[in-house]
Amino acid sequence: MNIELRVVLRQLGLLLFGLSALIVTVGVFALAERLTGHSQDWADVRALGMTAFLGFLAGAVCFLCGRRMERIFGQREALLLVAASWIVGAALAALPFRLWAFLRNDAATTLHNFDSVINCYFEAMSGLTTTGATIVEHLATLPRSLLLWRSLTQWLGGLGIVVLFVAVLPMLGMGSRRIYRIESPGPSPEGVKPRIQDAARALWYIYCGLTVAEILALRVAGMDWFNSVCHTFATLATGGFATSDSSMIGQSAGIQVVIIAFMLFAGVNFALYHQLLRGNWKSVKRDPELRVYLSLIAAATVIISISLWRQSAATADVGLGTVVGPAIFQVVAIQTTTGFSSTDFDTWGFVAKATLLILMFIGGSAGSTGGGIKVMRIMIGFKVLIAEFEHTYRPKVVRPVKIGKMTIDQDVKRNTLVYLLGIAILFGMGTCALMYLESGADIDITTAATASAATLNNIGPGLARVGATQNYAWFAPSSKIVMCVLMLLGRLEMFTVIVLFSPRFWKAE
Amino acid sequence: MNIELRVVLRQLGLLLFGLSALIVTVGVFALAERLTGHSQDWADVRALGMTAFLGFLAGAVCFLCGRRMERIFGQREALLLVAASWIVGAALAALPFRLWAFLRNDAATTLHNFDSVINCYFEAMSGLTTTGATIVEHLATLPRSLLLWRSLTQWLGGLGIVVLFVAVLPMLGMGSRRIYRIESPGPSPEGVKPRIQDAARALWYIYCGLTVAEILALRVAGMDWFNSVCHTFATLATGGFATSDSSMIGQSAGIQVVIIAFMLFAGVNFALYHQLLRGNWKSVKRDPELRVYLSLIAAATVIISISLWRQSAATADVGLGTVVGPAIFQVVAIQTTTGFSSTDFDTWGFVAKATLLILMFIGGSAGSTGGGIKVMRIMIGFKVLIAEFEHTYRPKVVRPVKIGKMTIDQDVKRNTLVYLLGIAILFGMGTCALMYLESGADIDITTAATASAATLNNIGPGLARVGATQNYAWFAPSSKIVMCVLMLLGRLEMFTVIVLFSPRFWKAE
Repeated sequence: MNIELRVVLRQLGLLLFGLSALIVTVGVFALAERLTGHSQDWADVRALGMTAFLGFLAGAVCFLCGRRMERIFGQREALLLVAASWIVGAALAALPFRLWAFLRNDAATTLHNFDSVINCYFEAMSGLTTTGATIVEHLATLPRSLLLWRSLTQWLGGLGIVVLFVAVLPMLGMGSRRIYRIESPGPSPEGVKPRIQDAARALWYIYCGLTVAEILALRVAGMDWFNSVCHTFATLATGGFATSDSSMIGQSAGIQVVIIAFMLFAGVNFALYHQLLRGNWKSVKRDPELRVYLSLIAAATVIISISLWRQSAATADVGLGTVVGPAIFQVVAIQTTTGFSSTDFDTWGFVAKATLLILMFIGGSAGSTGGGIKVMRIMIGFKVLIAEFEHTYRPKVVRPVKIGKMTIDQDVKRNTLVYLLGIAILFGMGTCALMYLESGADIDITTAATASAATLNNIGPGLARVGATQNYAWFAPSSKIVMCVLMLLGRLEMFTVIVLFSPRFWKAE
Repeated sequence: MNIELRVVLRQLGLLLFGLSALIVTVGVFALAERLTGHSQDWADVRALGMTAFLGFLAGAVCFLCGRRMERIFGQREALLLVAASWIVGAALAALPFRLWAFLRNDAATTLHNFDSVINCYFEAMSGLTTTGATIVEHLATLPRSLLLWRSLTQWLGGLGIVVLFVAVLPMLGMGSRRIYRIESPGPSPEGVKPRIQDAARALWYIYCGLTVAEILALRVAGMDWFNSVCHTFATLATGGFATSDSSMIGQSAGIQVVIIAFMLFAGVNFALYHQLLRGNWKSVKRDPELRVYLSLIAAATVIISISLWRQSAATADVGLGTVVGPAIFQVVAIQTTTGFSSTDFDTWGFVAKATLLILMFIGGSAGSTGGGIKVMRIMIGFKVLIAEFEHTYRPKVVRPVKIGKMTIDQDVKRNTLVYLLGIAILFGMGTCALMYLESGADIDITTAATASAATLNNIGPGLARVGATQNYAWFAPSSKIVMCVLMLLGRLEMFTVIVLFSPRFWKAE
């Protein structure tokens, strides 16, 4: 059967409608800001309004040209829709940035980073993929409405990922469905679609619940409403867009504790919250991935604390206690792939930085908003490695590889190994591409490698010239395109994007 | 059943006898050199003599304490013997270096790199693993007998690897036996042992035949006998130890052509020569790995030639022809993991260097003396990746993964993926370890990463401070131990060594 492009088109139309509706909401906020005198000009209101209009228009065209979905989505249509959603969604999400830069009062006299189309697309893609890498050098130059929109793109991206990987793809029999563990109540008489909708609705409630909880917690900790909302959006999506250039540096301890807690929550498999709501506390407590996830964070915190303590002890008389705070914040921020920084970790010693780099690749739990390889895949990969070593000297002994009580079958094993390998290859290719494209800028390997890792794993900051206090504005447009691709590949778990380049994907079966 | 350490011990004793006999031969050469006035003192003669004596003694102890092999070797005994052979063999092979440094005339007044035990062990391990990384700064300081011994360790290592991976391990049902393709005539009435001996004998003839051919070819091309022999030993083992600090820089075109040809031969699966001898020309011509191996070399040569041409065209008026020579020499030297250099490729541009770095990891064919991942594993890994991508959108379609006419089964697929992943992990760990251990020496990432890659893949030279004109003497002893481990892991294909660290390996079944 040929792939049904028109079915995909119609769904894409619906997506554009939804995005445009949200842009209208942000537009209303912008209008309120203008009317209350918080903003200097009408540029953001007009930019958001025009974007919403264009979004609705494009959505209508897609919707009308599209075809109603009569049957359950095919696998290929679903995959195409997923990739297209992020690619087209980022284009629409980038439009307010570009239009604002064009319409602002001092557009004729000063240059803003948003004057470049690729910069705007990079920022939007970084938002929707919950990466958090930014090309804005001075966030204070942006109106608050656009800061809100930036954060909102992350929140949307996070929600999209959770719904996609926990509810939609596994129930369509795709993705590594075994590693995301929402309960599957067996074949239901109503078919797959209602089950997907049930699961999606549950996830939506959980995500919104956590959002409200964090906004209130941040407000109580002393942040104003606007910043609470923006930072909540960035935290729960493990995105990491902040509202000031200093990210979390200099924020109060209370705020940092709240942020740490909710970054941790966001890095947990959302299916577990579902279990929790149903009172299934035991299965949550026994979840093997959760345990490893928390253990890794604890272990990394200890290693980095000791490293920081030894480093600072050389210059000043510092207690071990004063280094634990920055260590735990940065460990959680990096492993959950949020990418906030509470300190300039680029000044840390080699051991601390190497630990962070390893955490970048591990990432959050499967079924969380976190990026990276995912803790579950690391666990499976590790166990398969061990089993394979034993297989060398006991070829006839076949021990099943188990995670908790679940036996990992051949398909999942192979898929996991291919995934791990794929990430390694993409990381290498990304690094080489950046080295090559930036050879004029005399880029160092640390910058190229960590920029590649930070975008592929959807973290945001890397080291050296893409470190905690730096940004991505200085890259050449070609490099930014490479990094957009890396963000997309990482966020959609690679397979979902790469298959589109397979000729067989498009051919009739 | 418990592992039979005494069976291993006895075989180890035999190995020490063999090595000592060879050392006696080199000792006779040293004696001849002294008597004809080529060497200044008796140090090398005495060092080799003492080593041979100690070797025979240790061999006798092992042999007498050991137990006669009554049944076919167990898998675990075989693996232990393999790892122990290289570890103990390198210790004996290092002894002449250390003793010579101690006994030489000017030992009291000057310092030689061989005055350190770890340096000598590094050099011997680099020889036996056919790596070719050296800690000798000035080869001219060594007597010719020790240069011969250095080269001979490589030749031995190469022979050992071919016999091990093509004849011994596959017939014991270990290793990735499917990727080494000596014909298996089915279960023979005489059992496994005679079959192993037949195959080993055939490989021995082939290896010696190629050796004689290259010595004669180099002699005809204008090299003297001594250098012909040494370079032949280093070429056929894809080792890369030269007899002068300048490696192949400045050698005549004729000699370079001979070296290129025999490096190419050494990187081919030795089972193919066996086929060839039996007149099975067709199956050689159709061998899929051979085709990919040659295609990769051709493609890399083209890429590097263009890169070099563009680089040199910027400064001088150079024809494309003048860059092809260095390009093809270096491509073959690096992909076969020989590691000779005909030019200082560290001065090349990014594209050329990145290409060489990729070739380092690909390595020679399975069943050749070349190191690296092996072309066959790259082919399998690549095809499994492609199949896995298709599996994403067509979960029900199962297409067999084929190399030529051979279908790759699940076991080989998983094993290959684990191998690729393992190399990536070891490479990362090696790089981190070197960065950490050399932090005082302010090592750059390029040096650490390429030193890790060059030792793990048994190449020899890397880039920057371990580049073509550099050496490994400046590393700290701890780093040298790390690199010895990497050389061993790479040469024995990882599994063979890592299993020794598994507690279950030592336990009764």
